[in-house]
Amino acid sequence: MMIVTSGAVAFGKQRLRHEILLSQSVRQALHSGQNQLKDMILVTNLDFHDDQKRRNLNSTLHELLRMNIVPIINTNDAVVPPPEPNSDLQGVNVISIKDNDSLAARLAVEMKADLLIVLSDVEGLYDSPPGTDDAKLLDTFYPGDQQSITYGTKSRVGIGGMEAKVKAALWALQGGTSVVIANGTHPKVTGHVITDIVEGKKVGTFFSEVKPAGPTVEQQTEMARTAGRLLAGLDPEQRSEIICAVADLLTEKKDEILSANKKDMELAINAGRMSAPMLKRLSLSPAKLNSLAIGLRQIAVSSQDSVGRVLRRTRVANNLELEQITVPIGVLLVIFESRPDCLPQVSALAIASGNALLLKGGKEAANTNRILHELAQEALAIHGVKDAIQLVSTREEVEDLCRLEKQIDLIIPRGSSQLVRDIQRAAKGIPVLGHSEGICHVYVDHEASIDKVIKIVRDSKCDYPAACNAMETLLVHRDILRTPLFDQIIDMLRTEHVKIHAGPRFASYLTFSPSEVKSLRTEYGDLECCIEVVDSMQEAVDHIHKYGSSHTDVIVTENEETAEQFLQQLDSACVFWNASSRFADGYRFGLGAEVGISTARIHARGPVGLEGLLTTKWVLRGDGHTAADFSESGSMTYLHENLPVAHSLPGKRTSN
Amino acid sequence: MMIVTSGAVAFGKQRLRHEILLSQSVRQALHSGQNQLKDMILVTNLDFHDDQKRRNLNSTLHELLRMNIVPIINTNDAVVPPPEPNSDLQGVNVISIKDNDSLAARLAVEMKADLLIVLSDVEGLYDSPPGTDDAKLLDTFYPGDQQSITYGTKSRVGIGGMEAKVKAALWALQGGTSVVIANGTHPKVTGHVITDIVEGKKVGTFFSEVKPAGPTVEQQTEMARTAGRLLAGLDPEQRSEIICAVADLLTEKKDEILSANKKDMELAINAGRMSAPMLKRLSLSPAKLNSLAIGLRQIAVSSQDSVGRVLRRTRVANNLELEQITVPIGVLLVIFESRPDCLPQVSALAIASGNALLLKGGKEAANTNRILHELAQEALAIHGVKDAIQLVSTREEVEDLCRLEKQIDLIIPRGSSQLVRDIQRAAKGIPVLGHSEGICHVYVDHEASIDKVIKIVRDSKCDYPAACNAMETLLVHRDILRTPLFDQIIDMLRTEHVKIHAGPRFASYLTFSPSEVKSLRTEYGDLECCIEVVDSMQEAVDHIHKYGSSHTDVIVTENEETAEQFLQQLDSACVFWNASSRFADGYRFGLGAEVGISTARIHARGPVGLEGLLTTKWVLRGDGHTAADFSESGSMTYLHENLPVAHSLPGKRTSN
Repeated sequence: MMIVTSGAVAFGKQRLRHEILLSQSVRQALHSGQNQLKDMILVTNLDFHDDQKRRNLNSTLHELLRMNIVPIINTNDAVVPPPEPNSDLQGVNVISIKDNDSLAARLAVEMKADLLIVLSDVEGLYDSPPGTDDAKLLDTFYPGDQQSITYGTKSRVGIGGMEAKVKAALWALQGGTSVVIANGTHPKVTGHVITDIVEGKKVGTFFSEVKPAGPTVEQQTEMARTAGRLLAGLDPEQRSEIICAVADLLTEKKDEILSANKKDMELAINAGRMSAPMLKRLSLSPAKLNSLAIGLRQIAVSSQDSVGRVLRRTRVANNLELEQITVPIGVLLVIFESRPDCLPQVSALAIASGNALLLKGGKEAANTNRILHELAQEALAIHGVKDAIQLVSTREEVEDLCRLEKQIDLIIPRGSSQLVRDIQRAAKGIPVLGHSEGICHVYVDHEASIDKVIKIVRDSKCDYPAACNAMETLLVHRDILRTPLFDQIIDMLRTEHVKIHAGPRFASYLTFSPSEVKSLRTEYGDLECCIEVVDSMQEAVDHIHKYGSSHTDVIVTENEETAEQFLQQLDSACVFWNASSRFADGYRFGLGAEVGISTARIHARGPVGLEGLLTTKWVLRGDGHTAADFSESGSMTYLHENLPVAHSLPGKRTSN
Repeated sequence: MMIVTSGAVAFGKQRLRHEILLSQSVRQALHSGQNQLKDMILVTNLDFHDDQKRRNLNSTLHELLRMNIVPIINTNDAVVPPPEPNSDLQGVNVISIKDNDSLAARLAVEMKADLLIVLSDVEGLYDSPPGTDDAKLLDTFYPGDQQSITYGTKSRVGIGGMEAKVKAALWALQGGTSVVIANGTHPKVTGHVITDIVEGKKVGTFFSEVKPAGPTVEQQTEMARTAGRLLAGLDPEQRSEIICAVADLLTEKKDEILSANKKDMELAINAGRMSAPMLKRLSLSPAKLNSLAIGLRQIAVSSQDSVGRVLRRTRVANNLELEQITVPIGVLLVIFESRPDCLPQVSALAIASGNALLLKGGKEAANTNRILHELAQEALAIHGVKDAIQLVSTREEVEDLCRLEKQIDLIIPRGSSQLVRDIQRAAKGIPVLGHSEGICHVYVDHEASIDKVIKIVRDSKCDYPAACNAMETLLVHRDILRTPLFDQIIDMLRTEHVKIHAGPRFASYLTFSPSEVKSLRTEYGDLECCIEVVDSMQEAVDHIHKYGSSHTDVIVTENEETAEQFLQQLDSACVFWNASSRFADGYRFGLGAEVGISTARIHARGPVGLEGLLTTKWVLRGDGHTAADFSESGSMTYLHENLPVAHSLPGKRTSN
C-alpha cells in the first residue's frame, strides 16, 4: 500500500488519517501483527527521468514496503522543475508528473502495483459531463470506448479533472496496473470505499482491458423496459400466444433442456456441495417439463383479462370521463434459487401481465437457465418483443442489482425465507414482494367439533409441513385440556410423528411435559409444533397478534358468533373458520396463476394472483376542459357519477 | 477523552485504533489542530483508595488531557491485589475496580466526565434477557425502574455482564456522569456508534436521572395499535360520528385553538426565521377552521363504505366460501410541516379508514398541534378509542421514527417534495406513500384545436403553478412551429407572465432564443416552463418517458386515433386527452377524501382516496375442509365460482 496525496503535506497527513488507518487494516490482513509506520517521500519529475534516481526511489520504496511501512508520496513542489511541453503520454515509460493522478499512475506502474485507486469527488467516469440530463456512470471502461465519452470543458471539478484522471488511468492500465476511479468523499456503498473496491464491489469505474461479450445489466434493464412497453401494447391474445409458444418449446426442445440440466447436475454432484433435496430441486425430468407446460397454458388462459381491465369509470362532468385501468408495473427483477423450472413459470407470469423481466438465477443452474431463457426469447420474438425478458449474468451480485432503484420497479424473491429477508434488507428504495415467514396458528375453541378439529389440525400440520401456510402453533381452549378430544389430538399428532413442544402455560399444566419451546415465534417448517393453552377466543387473538406473523390463522368452533368475532378481530392476511390453513394458496383461492404469498401490508396481501404484477393508470378524456371551468365563476359543475364497468375476475362466472 | 480498554494491553492498543482515531476526531473538534498523542496508564484498586495516589492519578490524567493526549487506562493485572469482599456500591466514593466497567465508572466520576460510554456486544439494556420472546431494548433507563429488569443468569455474554455494566452505570450516574450502554461491534445506525452517541442519536440505552412525563414513542405506537384495532372494529356509523365530533369541536373550541395558534405565530415571528408564505401556512383563522370542519364532514360521509367492504367472493367448493374484504393497514405515521390544519384532516382520514395514527408535526406549530390533537382524542373517546391517534413529541427525530419498521406500517409525508425525498431515504423497510416530483407535460399535436390548446395550456401552467400537477414542459409538434397557433400560445404565456425556457431543439429553430434549459427534467413550480419541439406523437411519448416523472401528461389533439395511441403507450399515473393536467387530483377525480398523490408504482398510483389507507384480508368459511379432501384420492373438487358482490364506490350512483 502506498498513498499519493495532495497539496499541503501536513494537511494531507492529518486529513488522511482515516485512509492511513484503513490502509493499515488492509496491510494487517496481508502481513499480520507488525507495528504500523508511515513515511513521507517527496519526488519530482526528474526523479523518474534520471535512471539512477529512479532505481534509488524504487529500492527505497520496496525497502519501506518490506518493512511494512506505508509510504506517502507527493511532488516536491519546492524544487519541482517546470513541466516539459508535450512530454506526457508518449509511451509506456514516459508520463509527465503534472498532478497526483499522473504521479500515482507513474508510481503504480514503476512499483508494479496490482491496483491503482484514484479517489475523486464524483462517483466515477460518466459518458457525459456529470449533472447533464443524459450522463450515465460507467461501471467499466474499456480503452477502445474512449471516443464515446464527452468531457465537459467549463466546470472546474471532476471534468477537466476527470479527463486527466482518465489519461493517467489508461497509462497505468497500459503499464499493467488495473485502475478504479471512485468517489472518496461520499461512498454510495455501505462501509468504506477502499475496502469495498478491494472486496470487488461495484464502486466507481473500473478500467479493464477485457471487454465482456454481453451488455451490462443496466443496458439489459433498458432493453427490457423498451421491449416491455411493446409487450404491454400487444393484444391479450398475442401475449397468450407467446406463453403457449414457450409451453410448446418446452416439449419440442425437451432433449436439449434435459442435456443442459444434466450438465448442471454433474457439475453440482462433482462439486459435492449440494444436499440431496437441493439436487432434487435442481434436476428436471420429462414429467416436470410436462407439468410445467400445463401450468404455462393455464397462465395463458388467465392472462386474457389482466392488462387494460377497467376497474372504475366516472363521469366527472359532461364530456369529461375518467377510467382507472390496469397496467403492468414496469420492470420486475425475479431472484430465484436452484429450481430452474421457476424460469419459464415466472416468464409466463411476466408476459401475462405485460411486464419486462430481469431474471437472476443461481450459478448451479446456469446451463439449464441459459437454454430456458433462450426458449422464452424465441417465443417473445414471435411478436417482436424478444428483449422483454433478460437473464442477468451469474457474475452480477444480488446486492448490486438491488441498488438499481431508478430502473427496477419491483423485486420478487423466489426461494427460502432467508433469501427473502436478505433481499428485503438489500433493496433500498425498490419494493419487494414476498413473504418472510409463516407462523400460522390453529385455535381449537371449547365449542369445536371433534371431527373437524382432528381433520383440520392434521391437514394444517401434516399435509406439507415445510410450506409457509402449515400450522406452527396449536392454541387450545383451557376447557378441552383434560377431555377425550384433547387426548385424540395428541394421539393423532403422535401417529403422524409430529414432535410436540410445550408453550410455558401448557407446560405448567403437565406433570411430565415435552420440551418447552424456546420461543413462541418459531417457524418449525417440519413435523413439529408448539401447543399452548388460552382461556378464551379473545386470548387466542391476543396471542396470535403478539407471536404470529400475520400470515394465516384458523379457528375451529361450532359457535358462529365466536367465529365471526375471531375473523373480524384477527389482523392476518388470511383468517379461516373451520378450514385448514393449507388453503392459503393462489391456486386454491382460484386466483389463476400464483405470483406468491405476500406478508406485506400494502399493494398485495396474502396469496397474490396476476393482479400483484399490475398497477393502474388513470385515463381522462375531455373536450378542452380546464380546472378554471369549475371555479366559482366557471360554467361547469362536477357530476362524479359512477358508470358501470364490466366486472370479470379470474375463475368461472356464476349465473347467480 | 479517555479510553478504558480490556485485557492484554498490546492487543487492546492495536484493536482499538479505530476508536482512538475517532476519539481524536471528536477531540479535534474541541481543541483544534494539535498533534495527536496517546498514553497508556495502568492502575490498581489501591490507586483509588489511597488519597495521595488518587490525587496523583487525577493530576496526571488532567495534565495528559490538557496536553491533548488520549490516556488509555487499564488495571495493572500484574500487581492488582485481590478484590475486597463487599466493597462495591457502598457509596459515591467507593466502587471496587473489578472490571473495566467499574474502572471506567470510577474514572468518569473521579475526572468529572460529561459522559461515560460503555460498549458491549448487545444493543443495550433489555427489560428481559436479550433473545427471549418479550425482550425490549430500553432507550432510556431511570434508576427508579431498576426493579422492572429481569437479568438472565446462565448466559455468559451481556447478561451477568450486563448486570455489572448497569451497576457501574448507576454508580457513575449517581456521581454526576451521564451514561450510555451501546453495542460497539455492530452499530445499528449508519456511521460510527461513538459519533452517533455524541450527536445525540438514539443508540443503546441512555441512563438518566430525569424521567420524562409522557410515554416513549414505542409505547405510543403500541397504545395506538391496540386502540386502532378497536377503532377498526367499530361500526362505520361510529367512526363517522367521531369524525363529525372532531368537526364540531373545531367550531366549539375555536377560541382556544386560535389562541394557541396565536402563541405559535408570535414565537415564530419573534424567532424571525420563517418566511411570509411559511407564516401564512402556520396561521389559522375562523374561516380556515370553518372550511376544515366542512372538509371533515365530507370525509365522514365517504368513510361509511371503506372498511369491511367485500371486493371479491368466491365459492371455492361446496360450503367453502372465500371473501376478500378491505381492512385498515395498521399504524400510519404522518409527518407534516408547518400547516397545523393538516392534523384534523389526517386524523379524520385515519379514523375513516380505521387506522391507528402517529402524528409528527413541526416544532413551529407545537401549541396549535397540541390542542388540535386533544380535540381529536376527545372525539375518539366517545367510543373508547382515545389512544388510536398519538401526537409524537417534537423532540423525536424523524430519522428515529423511520427506523421503527416493526411497529409502523406506512409513512405518509405531507409537505415539500424535499421532505418526501428525505423520508423515502430515511425509511428503511417501511413503505412511504408520497409523490416526489411532478414533471408534467402537455403535448400539442399538429391536429389540435386552437381554442382547446390555449385553454388547456393556460390552465395547466397558470391555474396553480406551484402544484405538482402543473405543466412544466410544453411539447409542440414541429408542424405548428411557424403557425398562428404557435404565436397565440406564446402571446398567451407572455400575457400570463410565464417565463419561457427553450429546449435544445426548440432553441435551434430560433434566431433569438430565450434562455436554454439547464435540464429537461426541471420542476419549476412557478410561472416558468420549458418548450421543446418533437416530430410526432411517438417522439412526444419517448421524450416524456425519458424526462418525465410519470405523474400527469396531456395530449391535445382532434385526432382520436393519435389520442388513443398516446393514452395507451404513455406510462404515467395520469394520462389525459384534451383536458388540463390540473384534473389530477382526488377531489376532481371524485375519490371523496384525498390522501395524496402517489408516484409510486405499487399499492396506489396517482390521486389516492381512502382506498390508499386500506389493505385487504382473505376470509374463508368452511365446514371442516382440508386440502387433502381435494387431492386425487379426496372426495371434493374445486368450483372457484365468482359470486356477486355489491359494488359501491365513493361518489354518486348512477342508475345507468
